[in-house]
Amino acid sequence: MPQLDRTPAPVDSRPHVVIVGAGFGGLACAGALGGTNIRVTVIDRHNYHLFVPLLYQVATAALSPADIAEPIRRILSRHPNIDVLMGEVTGIDRAQKRVVLADGSFVPYDRLVLATGSSYSYFGHDDWAAIAPGLKTIENARRIRARLLMSFEQAEMCDDPERQKALMTSIIVGGGPTGVEMAGSIAELARHALAKDFRRIDPRAAKVLLVEAGPRILASFPDDLANYARRKLEELGVVVLTGQAVEAITPEGATVAGRFIPAGTIVWGAGVQASPAGKWLGAETDRAGRIPVNADMSVPGVPDVYALGDTATLAGDDGKPLPGLAQVAKQQGEHLGAALEASLLRDQPMEPFHFHNRGNTAIVGRSAAVFDFGKRHLKGWFAWVLWAIIHVYLLVGFQKRVLVTMQWLWRYATYQRGARLITQDSPTSATVQPAASPVGRTAQPFNEPRRRQG
Amino acid sequence: MPQLDRTPAPVDSRPHVVIVGAGFGGLACAGALGGTNIRVTVIDRHNYHLFVPLLYQVATAALSPADIAEPIRRILSRHPNIDVLMGEVTGIDRAQKRVVLADGSFVPYDRLVLATGSSYSYFGHDDWAAIAPGLKTIENARRIRARLLMSFEQAEMCDDPERQKALMTSIIVGGGPTGVEMAGSIAELARHALAKDFRRIDPRAAKVLLVEAGPRILASFPDDLANYARRKLEELGVVVLTGQAVEAITPEGATVAGRFIPAGTIVWGAGVQASPAGKWLGAETDRAGRIPVNADMSVPGVPDVYALGDTATLAGDDGKPLPGLAQVAKQQGEHLGAALEASLLRDQPMEPFHFHNRGNTAIVGRSAAVFDFGKRHLKGWFAWVLWAIIHVYLLVGFQKRVLVTMQWLWRYATYQRGARLITQDSPTSATVQPAASPVGRTAQPFNEPRRRQG
Repeated sequence: MPQLDRTPAPVDSRPHVVIVGAGFGGLACAGALGGTNIRVTVIDRHNYHLFVPLLYQVATAALSPADIAEPIRRILSRHPNIDVLMGEVTGIDRAQKRVVLADGSFVPYDRLVLATGSSYSYFGHDDWAAIAPGLKTIENARRIRARLLMSFEQAEMCDDPERQKALMTSIIVGGGPTGVEMAGSIAELARHALAKDFRRIDPRAAKVLLVEAGPRILASFPDDLANYARRKLEELGVVVLTGQAVEAITPEGATVAGRFIPAGTIVWGAGVQASPAGKWLGAETDRAGRIPVNADMSVPGVPDVYALGDTATLAGDDGKPLPGLAQVAKQQGEHLGAALEASLLRDQPMEPFHFHNRGNTAIVGRSAAVFDFGKRHLKGWFAWVLWAIIHVYLLVGFQKRVLVTMQWLWRYATYQRGARLITQDSPTSATVQPAASPVGRTAQPFNEPRRRQG
Repeated sequence: MPQLDRTPAPVDSRPHVVIVGAGFGGLACAGALGGTNIRVTVIDRHNYHLFVPLLYQVATAALSPADIAEPIRRILSRHPNIDVLMGEVTGIDRAQKRVVLADGSFVPYDRLVLATGSSYSYFGHDDWAAIAPGLKTIENARRIRARLLMSFEQAEMCDDPERQKALMTSIIVGGGPTGVEMAGSIAELARHALAKDFRRIDPRAAKVLLVEAGPRILASFPDDLANYARRKLEELGVVVLTGQAVEAITPEGATVAGRFIPAGTIVWGAGVQASPAGKWLGAETDRAGRIPVNADMSVPGVPDVYALGDTATLAGDDGKPLPGLAQVAKQQGEHLGAALEASLLRDQPMEPFHFHNRGNTAIVGRSAAVFDFGKRHLKGWFAWVLWAIIHVYLLVGFQKRVLVTMQWLWRYATYQRGARLITQDSPTSATVQPAASPVGRTAQPFNEPRRRQG
């Protein structure tokens, strides 16, 4: 067996770039620094990079977590100059130029890149988070999947028609791309994949509500595409409520514009807030916690620290803030990696970043997606195929591309979904319980078969 | 939208068979009763049927849970006479002939089939279960996977060579087929899939110990096959300890034959105990909790109740108890289903069950498996291909077959594993912490790169 070399290495004279976060931005930055004479350390809480744009498919039982996640070590293993460290960053020591980890250890840096992303904001109602999970992590997606499937199981066992209706109701809060994708996918799950598997309920009668406080869904898209998406959602049976705010969320349902709607599943996709990177630095942030950065992504007043993606806010060439999209973070990461190399190894100035819009997309459901390429708008079947090709292409790892393609083709042909698992966090966990109170049938017999009339 | 018919159905005159447990036995029994004029209710704690023989591949990051699990409703949806009920059985009311569920509701039966399987027995040391999970559920497999991968992550961050060695040590308790499969698969994971992804540790130096209290591993197999398996395991670098009992398990490691071995991951595969079905009935059970049944699988002294698979014990034609194998449960289920139909609809006597041995198999690792067909023994590459074909064939659902085949071909070609995810039960859960105490490097800098010398 090979022996480990335990003698300390000679003092490393290479400059050291530390990247916190291995999302789209952090990975792109690390990749751009791969193979250079710069020492790079990538720190992430998880051991995997998550392809968040497809997370809604995990939440709706179409894909498995491993289909859209790839170990960070694996992705970066071909670059010997890059170290990967799984750990939780809790602070930054600006004076000593080092990153502090949760276990008390620290990582010194010459230059620091903060690419820590964002989480959902509950607008001060943090207690809603446990009832209405957002869609940012695998754990969340699995929890939503379990709650969704469990609601149908409980409806099947329930004798109270009101309660049954409530359990079969899903409320999606927020009409952005994630909300639209979730609503369409849940509607299709109920109408097709689950349709024939129950005896006492008809899953096709499930209700999906998409609630948006603003005047229309897909606010970041042009009118014609947003209208198309709304029409397609309504064809799928989704009830789209615009101009109506969610005022309260309880385990039994949500209050929307003064009206209480009982629901089995509530999914949150409304507000976004940046990770606490701004707080670690004591830097100025905007209301959503993002750090306003200079054009080269450096943090004003904090030497040698950079922020990108959802952690930062930066105006585009049109003067408007760049949107919180994967492609923005990715381009920023690539740009910053190249700029850091030029600065550290060739002493060149850091170039300002310019965003090149590759088009904005959202998927509504089977055969329906929208693309906004600025001047050109695309919708319908062709947009949907393009969406699928692009997303498969962007997935890291050849095997995942093939597996996901196969599962999509299978799903397209059969309407079935391959990951309909209700798995529990722990045997006693409450997280897979439906949002609402238990089915009121204590000591009631489950003996009278009731057949539905389709 | 279709409306539910809420008027009570006319009293159902069909006989009602209730099956508890949708493992191999319960599903086979339900399948045999599908399409008959008997009303069938299948009750299971989970919404999916789990293909347990491949669970070790989930625990070692080769497959995803959804690859080896299929919704029970989906499997049985083509039979309108079968109801599926997701629920936890807590008891049986023999007098009133009904099954009691955890929520207080009950399900009356005319005939009851108990196919509730088994769990691992810790020989009175139930506190070991949290440290050394067995391999019976998806939650267990995911926990083992997280602990295994986390141990390598922590070893990479650790500066103490002793501690590093401990974290990179896995102990598998029990040299049956599951233990052999786990040991081989962990050794291959470390030597191939992880080999190039770390900078400060060499995963190939990982230690895998397979501990068996009996005189040899694979006790249920003939000598030549067991010896072959041992040799193949040792070629993979597994240390096989036979005739050595595990005396204690702590979060830091295990005491084996008087010697304490520090370890990061401990997996339990030793004793088996039946589910509490015997207790529900107040029936006589053997030491392992199994119900000794009559030749027609009826429970002595409890009218209209049957038990099969790991829930029961029954002598084969050779007078020895039938082994706890999937094929036994499956054949018993098929037989019992047919016998119940004959008895209930045609008033025929219940025929006794005879087991037809289809061969016993275990897989050691890449290109190495063993088959015992009674008179013929098979080992090596051909046995391994046969093992793969049979297991893919037995997987429920065409899509899963294709997906698993592809992942296996991919793995065979690249040595990579597609499901290397450390996912947490809950953000604060202790289950993904390595078995041992935290790395002792508080306030230590992680700044000196140490390159290993291969």
